[in-house]
Amino acid sequence: MSFTVHILGANSAVPNKNRFPTSQYIKLDREAILIDCGEGAQINLSKYKLKPSRIHTILISHLHGDHVYGLPGLIGSFNLAGRREALTIVGPVGIQAFLLGVFETTFVKLTFEVIFKELEHTGLKHINELNSVNIEAFPMKHRVPTFGYKITEKERELNIRSEAISTYKLNIDKIKAVKKGVDVTTEEGEIIPNKKLTKEQLKCMSYAYCSDTVFDKELIPFVERVDVLYHEATYLHELQHLAEERMHATAKEAGMIAKAAKVGQLLIGHYSSRYDDLQMLEDEAKLEFENTRLVRDGDEVTVGV
Amino acid sequence: MSFTVHILGANSAVPNKNRFPTSQYIKLDREAILIDCGEGAQINLSKYKLKPSRIHTILISHLHGDHVYGLPGLIGSFNLAGRREALTIVGPVGIQAFLLGVFETTFVKLTFEVIFKELEHTGLKHINELNSVNIEAFPMKHRVPTFGYKITEKERELNIRSEAISTYKLNIDKIKAVKKGVDVTTEEGEIIPNKKLTKEQLKCMSYAYCSDTVFDKELIPFVERVDVLYHEATYLHELQHLAEERMHATAKEAGMIAKAAKVGQLLIGHYSSRYDDLQMLEDEAKLEFENTRLVRDGDEVTVGV
Repeated sequence: MSFTVHILGANSAVPNKNRFPTSQYIKLDREAILIDCGEGAQINLSKYKLKPSRIHTILISHLHGDHVYGLPGLIGSFNLAGRREALTIVGPVGIQAFLLGVFETTFVKLTFEVIFKELEHTGLKHINELNSVNIEAFPMKHRVPTFGYKITEKERELNIRSEAISTYKLNIDKIKAVKKGVDVTTEEGEIIPNKKLTKEQLKCMSYAYCSDTVFDKELIPFVERVDVLYHEATYLHELQHLAEERMHATAKEAGMIAKAAKVGQLLIGHYSSRYDDLQMLEDEAKLEFENTRLVRDGDEVTVGV
Repeated sequence: MSFTVHILGANSAVPNKNRFPTSQYIKLDREAILIDCGEGAQINLSKYKLKPSRIHTILISHLHGDHVYGLPGLIGSFNLAGRREALTIVGPVGIQAFLLGVFETTFVKLTFEVIFKELEHTGLKHINELNSVNIEAFPMKHRVPTFGYKITEKERELNIRSEAISTYKLNIDKIKAVKKGVDVTTEEGEIIPNKKLTKEQLKCMSYAYCSDTVFDKELIPFVERVDVLYHEATYLHELQHLAEERMHATAKEAGMIAKAAKVGQLLIGHYSSRYDDLQMLEDEAKLEFENTRLVRDGDEVTVGV
C-alpha cells in the first residue's frame, strides 16, 4: 500500500517567511490521517492538492496554538462541504472544550459526528481507528501535556513475480488472491504454492512523529526501529539552553534520538523563525545521524510504496 | 497623511485556489487598523511585509469563522513578540467569549491588555480609538449580527505652495505651522495669510467596509459619498437567489449600492470559491458603477496620499 507523509507546515510557533506552523497529512491507500493542524493547514491542503475529505482521523500532539489553530477552519469547511462521515479527533484532555467552545461562539452547527478521544498523559495507548494502519500514542515532555504518535501498517501486500503472471496465465482476481498469500491451482489441477509466485514478504512500514518535545531518552523505546521518524529540531545546538528552557530540542539532539533508536530515516522540522538558512540544522543533525532530511512545506516523504 | 487599504484575504468562507479568507490592513501614518481576521491573516501580513506591531485597533464585522479564525494566532504571536501596548478589539457581542475561550483552552496568558468593545446591533456607533481617524460602526443584515465600518480622516494637512517656501524663506518649523493653517509673519513684520501660502484645502478622505451583507438599501446613508467603498460581491447576479438565501450580495448589487451612495470608487471582494475567473464579477459590477475594482490578496488601494 502507499504510505506517504505530506508536510503542510514545518515552522514553529510564529508563521514567518511564508513557512506555515505545524501540520502533516499522512496519505494511505483509501484514507488519510492529519497530524496536528496549525493555522492555514486547510489553505495548504488546497495548495498541494490533497483531499481533505479523505481525512478520517486527526491526531493532535498538544494544545499550543501553532498545532491546533487551523482546526476550527478545517472542520468548518468540512461542514460547508456537506460532510456526512464521522471524524475522529485524538488528543490531550481539553481538545473537545477548545473546539466546541469555538463552534459555540462562532455559530457552527456540525452536519457530521465528531468523536473525541481525549488521552490521559500516561504510558502507551493503542488507538485503532483506521482499516490499514495501527496508531499508537505515547507521552512526551513539553510545557503542556503532549503526545507523540506512531503509525504502523497492519499488513503489506505481497509483491507478485512478474513472470508468474504469464507462466500461469493469472487473471486479475487470481493476482489479487496471490497478493494476499493464496496458492494457485492451474487448469491441470496442479497447486502452485504462493512462495513460488511472490517475492520475499516486505515488512510493515512505520512512521513516528515527535513534536514538540524536549530532548528525552525515554522516547527511544516508543520509536525504536521505525522506518521514518519526524523529530522536532527547533534550534541549533548553540541555543541548547533556550531549547531546554522552552522544552524544545536541537537538531543535534534530534540526530541523537534517531541514532539511539536505530530508525531508518530522520526528518527534522519545527524550525524557529530566526533561521533563514535551514541547511545548517540538517548539517548539524547529520553529524549524529547521516540519513537526515530537513522538510519544508509542500514536501512529500515516502514511508512505503 | 497616507491612508491605504492592504488586502490580506478577499475570498469567502472556504479558502481555495490559494485565496485567503477575509482580512484587511488599513495603514495610516503611524498606526494601523485591521478589519476582520480570517485564518492566515498573520501569514499574509508577513508575506506582504506589513508590520503587525502597528495594529492598534481590530474591527470585527461578525463572528463567522472566515472573519475571525485568524485572531487567536495573530494575538498569540503578539504575545510571543513581547507586545506591551494595549490592543482594542471592536466587534459584535460574543467576540470576547470567543477569544478568551480559545486562550483559556490553549494556555495563552497575555502579556498586554486587550480592550474589548462589544457593540449592540443597533444604529450608528462612534468609536474613537485612533489619533488620526474617526471610526464609525453601523449594523448590516446578514445571518448573524454584523457591522460595517467607516473610517474617516480627522484632518488632512494643507499642501504648501512650493514658491512660498523660497519667497518667504520658510524654515521647517514654519512649514509645519503653515501646513496646520497658521499665518506667517515675515522678518519685516508683514503678516502673510495662510491662504496665500497653501493650495486649496483637501477634504478628509474616507473608507467604508461592508462585508458580509445582503443587498440592503438601508446601508446607503451610512456609506454615502465615501471615497472608497468595499462591498462584498460573493456571486454573479445569475445566482441572486442563492445570495438572498445566504444573505450575501451579488456583484451587480454591489455596483447598485455604490451608484446610489455616490461613492468615489468601489472595491469588490469576498468571492465564492466557485469562481476561477473573477473578472466576470468586476465586469458585472461595472455595468452599474464604472469605477469598480476587484481586489485580490496582496493588493494595495490608496484612499488618500
